[in-house]
Amino acid sequence: MKLLRVGTVGAERPALLDESGVLRDLSDLVTDINGALLADDEALARVRAAAASGELPALDASGLRIGAPVAGIGKVVCIGLNYHDHARETGAATPEEPIIFMKAPDTVVGPDDTVLIPRGSEKTDWEVELAVVIGRTARYLESDEQARAVVAGYAVAHDVSERAFQIERGGQWDKGKNCETFNPLGPWLVTADEVPDPQSLGIRLWVNGELKQDGTTAEQIFPVAEVVRYVSQFMTLYPGDVINTGTPAGVAMGQPEPKPYLRADDVVELEIDGLGRQCQRLARA
Amino acid sequence: MKLLRVGTVGAERPALLDESGVLRDLSDLVTDINGALLADDEALARVRAAAASGELPALDASGLRIGAPVAGIGKVVCIGLNYHDHARETGAATPEEPIIFMKAPDTVVGPDDTVLIPRGSEKTDWEVELAVVIGRTARYLESDEQARAVVAGYAVAHDVSERAFQIERGGQWDKGKNCETFNPLGPWLVTADEVPDPQSLGIRLWVNGELKQDGTTAEQIFPVAEVVRYVSQFMTLYPGDVINTGTPAGVAMGQPEPKPYLRADDVVELEIDGLGRQCQRLARA
Repeated sequence: MKLLRVGTVGAERPALLDESGVLRDLSDLVTDINGALLADDEALARVRAAAASGELPALDASGLRIGAPVAGIGKVVCIGLNYHDHARETGAATPEEPIIFMKAPDTVVGPDDTVLIPRGSEKTDWEVELAVVIGRTARYLESDEQARAVVAGYAVAHDVSERAFQIERGGQWDKGKNCETFNPLGPWLVTADEVPDPQSLGIRLWVNGELKQDGTTAEQIFPVAEVVRYVSQFMTLYPGDVINTGTPAGVAMGQPEPKPYLRADDVVELEIDGLGRQCQRLARA
Repeated sequence: MKLLRVGTVGAERPALLDESGVLRDLSDLVTDINGALLADDEALARVRAAAASGELPALDASGLRIGAPVAGIGKVVCIGLNYHDHARETGAATPEEPIIFMKAPDTVVGPDDTVLIPRGSEKTDWEVELAVVIGRTARYLESDEQARAVVAGYAVAHDVSERAFQIERGGQWDKGKNCETFNPLGPWLVTADEVPDPQSLGIRLWVNGELKQDGTTAEQIFPVAEVVRYVSQFMTLYPGDVINTGTPAGVAMGQPEPKPYLRADDVVELEIDGLGRQCQRLARA
């Protein structure tokens, strides 16, 4: 299923994009798309049955804002340097184990919302990422199979990053990762059953129509199941948590001087096979 | 006022410790102690008036668990190496600007809850910290005065840290900061009006009765107002967000070998002048 949330900021309603591409209202069936729903097999089965019946009310998609596809996200865990080609372009060694950093849930916005360039920023950069949405509480997972069992689904994430804040301002990457609007998510949460192999997805990003990132999740150093298993050794994952699994080559930081960092009015588009497409305009904070 | 939340995990009720030390029930007055309340001057004034009236129902404190004093925390921002004496003991240079890292809100537990030593941990360490609780949305604050105006209050925080995960496992500190139960908070949120000078508070921690940290917030390299102003340049602060402002000298990592890292059944007590006292027993996850 493709689950999503549509409407104005803070007043999104739960919806589903059916197999014919028709937007269907889920408001009568579930209160929201959130961790509680994702952990509730019976509720998900009811949504699935209602979708199959074709009887869910259709919604007029025209002009409707799409929000992030998950409400009440508890944390956003990010994996750094997780693509062979991206590690090479940054000049970093291939990590021996996953690098973990954090984004606050309040950085999450809808897939087509405006992204704000922070005041004082000269190095706002793009990163298209495969986001994993968690559907089960997970501690100390022991196998890839256990890890796959806690994944509710997948979405496109934009891990917007301010490189000077991240790297040149004294220590930890989080300083350049938590600016307002820095994590567009969606358009959809695609349930895991519809993504049989998360390691064979094309993943692309354009700036002003020019293709900048054109990778595949096959290039991930630590594949999704390994990432989920690994993260669960260091923190407890809860339904509704999100893991951004890293970005392929092609970010501004990896390009020759003058590096083409984002400017106001730039348009960024992002896409992952089967997971839909985002489009954001940049503006000054 | 001293605001707190009492009851079993997930079912805490809002309460107040009055000037006579009597625990008072706030359930009839407010739904919870959270960002919405802290941003609502009128609701806080009603609580204050009710407290002054002496007519709030008393609660029997005996045997009552104390939860974290704030519900629905959006993010926990942490400042690293923010005490002159702690920076020296770790062998780190004095930071030129605040170091920022993040803890997930799900690490927050009550002040006397069990703290879990993660599986595989050999270096679980203590850090008593002054926590600042935010009461106003804050972006790009321009002065210390503006920064002070967004502080709702203060609390004791324990920034539990796994040093091997934090430092020896490939990159970012967050890996050793986000383990389950790693952020006891409370017992109280003391409103800012009752903490006229957050830079003159004694701050102490004991392990098994032995005083390990015995500092003062006067040793902070970046004082509270500067920290809040600084953080607001990199991320938006919302009511109910928490900032842990760093720890004084005396952590296990700073001591000679064999460093006395925490073990199961150790008891840690923490205290800040006017903000109350925590007591946690350690257990294996």
